[in-house]
Amino acid sequence: MKVVTTIQALTVEIQAAKQAQKSIGLVPTMGYLHEGHLTLAKTARSENDLIVMSIFVNPTQFGPDEDFESYPRDLPRDTALAESAGVDIVFAPSVEEMYPHDGGIRIHAGEQATILCGASRPGHFDGVLQVVSKLFHLAQPTRAYFGQKDAQQVAIIATMVRDFNFPLEMRVVPIVREEEGLAKSSRNIYLSEAERLEAPAINEALQLARDSFLANRDTANALAKAKAHIATRTHGQIDYIELLAYPDLIPATAETEQVLLAAAVYIGKTRLIDNCIFNVKEGL
Amino acid sequence: MKVVTTIQALTVEIQAAKQAQKSIGLVPTMGYLHEGHLTLAKTARSENDLIVMSIFVNPTQFGPDEDFESYPRDLPRDTALAESAGVDIVFAPSVEEMYPHDGGIRIHAGEQATILCGASRPGHFDGVLQVVSKLFHLAQPTRAYFGQKDAQQVAIIATMVRDFNFPLEMRVVPIVREEEGLAKSSRNIYLSEAERLEAPAINEALQLARDSFLANRDTANALAKAKAHIATRTHGQIDYIELLAYPDLIPATAETEQVLLAAAVYIGKTRLIDNCIFNVKEGL
Repeated sequence: MKVVTTIQALTVEIQAAKQAQKSIGLVPTMGYLHEGHLTLAKTARSENDLIVMSIFVNPTQFGPDEDFESYPRDLPRDTALAESAGVDIVFAPSVEEMYPHDGGIRIHAGEQATILCGASRPGHFDGVLQVVSKLFHLAQPTRAYFGQKDAQQVAIIATMVRDFNFPLEMRVVPIVREEEGLAKSSRNIYLSEAERLEAPAINEALQLARDSFLANRDTANALAKAKAHIATRTHGQIDYIELLAYPDLIPATAETEQVLLAAAVYIGKTRLIDNCIFNVKEGL
Repeated sequence: MKVVTTIQALTVEIQAAKQAQKSIGLVPTMGYLHEGHLTLAKTARSENDLIVMSIFVNPTQFGPDEDFESYPRDLPRDTALAESAGVDIVFAPSVEEMYPHDGGIRIHAGEQATILCGASRPGHFDGVLQVVSKLFHLAQPTRAYFGQKDAQQVAIIATMVRDFNFPLEMRVVPIVREEEGLAKSSRNIYLSEAERLEAPAINEALQLARDSFLANRDTANALAKAKAHIATRTHGQIDYIELLAYPDLIPATAETEQVLLAAAVYIGKTRLIDNCIFNVKEGL
């Protein structure tokens, strides 16, 4: 495995791979890798000739009051983990390498970015689109890998790929779950034993809403069932539970093919997110 | 030469060319081709294996009061001219083919778009960046060709290519001039005989300003010389004459490497634009 820190060095590798007609899998990360990232890398490994993982804490997606400076970083540990997952090239540039100039051109996410988790993070998804589009141009991937756990991020990037015709396939890797269905998260360790027993109700609620929606296409009814389940099975506080057309994140209509059910729930003081994306016709 | 109207058909051609390791030259146009476009196509022809010309009147770069509907279109004539200039593929999509969805994501040009010709066309360069980025992703060119005549457009696209790391080379094709130095333009036919004799003073003024700036690096002095030349040699009205760092379009400093001198002058009722871009160190 190679670790490159400059755009020039990465470009040499990408051009050689293109010359050799290799398929390229890109796994964009902010480092401090956990099991979710490694699942992305392993999935990429099984589908492509060359695996590029970017490790870059992108300042433009942090708000002024957010934790850009204190965001955890551990490149030596990350590179060891990346190698173990089959990554060929780690691209770990500095902020100056990624943003040497500022000509003032910006990508703005639309209404999609104003709801769900975006409501409390203005500008966050603009920064995500900026860095992701740069990484797409730099690594020129055949396939790019994102975790479904961050469903809104996935939806917004998928919209950019679609509407701006990026020549790549977006691969969305399913949420990894504990045995009881709780979505894996580094935040699960904050849960007390009692809270840990309640937390799987979030996923159960999403499944109930999905089944309800597939049976009668009634968004309000489906969401009511999910909310009732969380209210009766947990002491948690619902931040949001929404059912939206995917990837546009607008209300589902008769023409909607794919649906996102997304929830953010405080279990005690811990905010947990979960979601499911399914095809309305096939129920998948 | 092939004429394709769908993204799918274009993608088949591009993938075949990539597979065969062919270099691709892209010439984006809005059609109604004139000598300038053909010069771009011929330059592309001499530098690439496969030449793609897009012919698409892009609605998103027209303001609500501008002439999108009445913009001249003549695809049969354009395809004949394109073929004569050595184009291999004309990509002539419909508006619906280019914009089937709107997920609301937008590219916004920065301060660069608020000056010169952009001052009177808010949103124009945002639309240009939107369609150009789509065409870049669709045609995946090795090199993309633009005319220096539209210097502000070239500067803004060059900034996007630089700041968003598009994997292509931007080729800026010099302004084609009449014998007396007047920049060729379809608008030159509007000039009276007397005006036609005055019009070369615009280019002369730019050359004087360039020589002056190279001699003493004094922007105000260089512009004063150009303005005086136009005032004494023509009856024209200056819209603007500016000297700016290229491609950022900010005031030139001691660090500036490339300079744009741009002018828009009314000769009678005809608004003529002209410019020169030169390297401060080499004077080229």
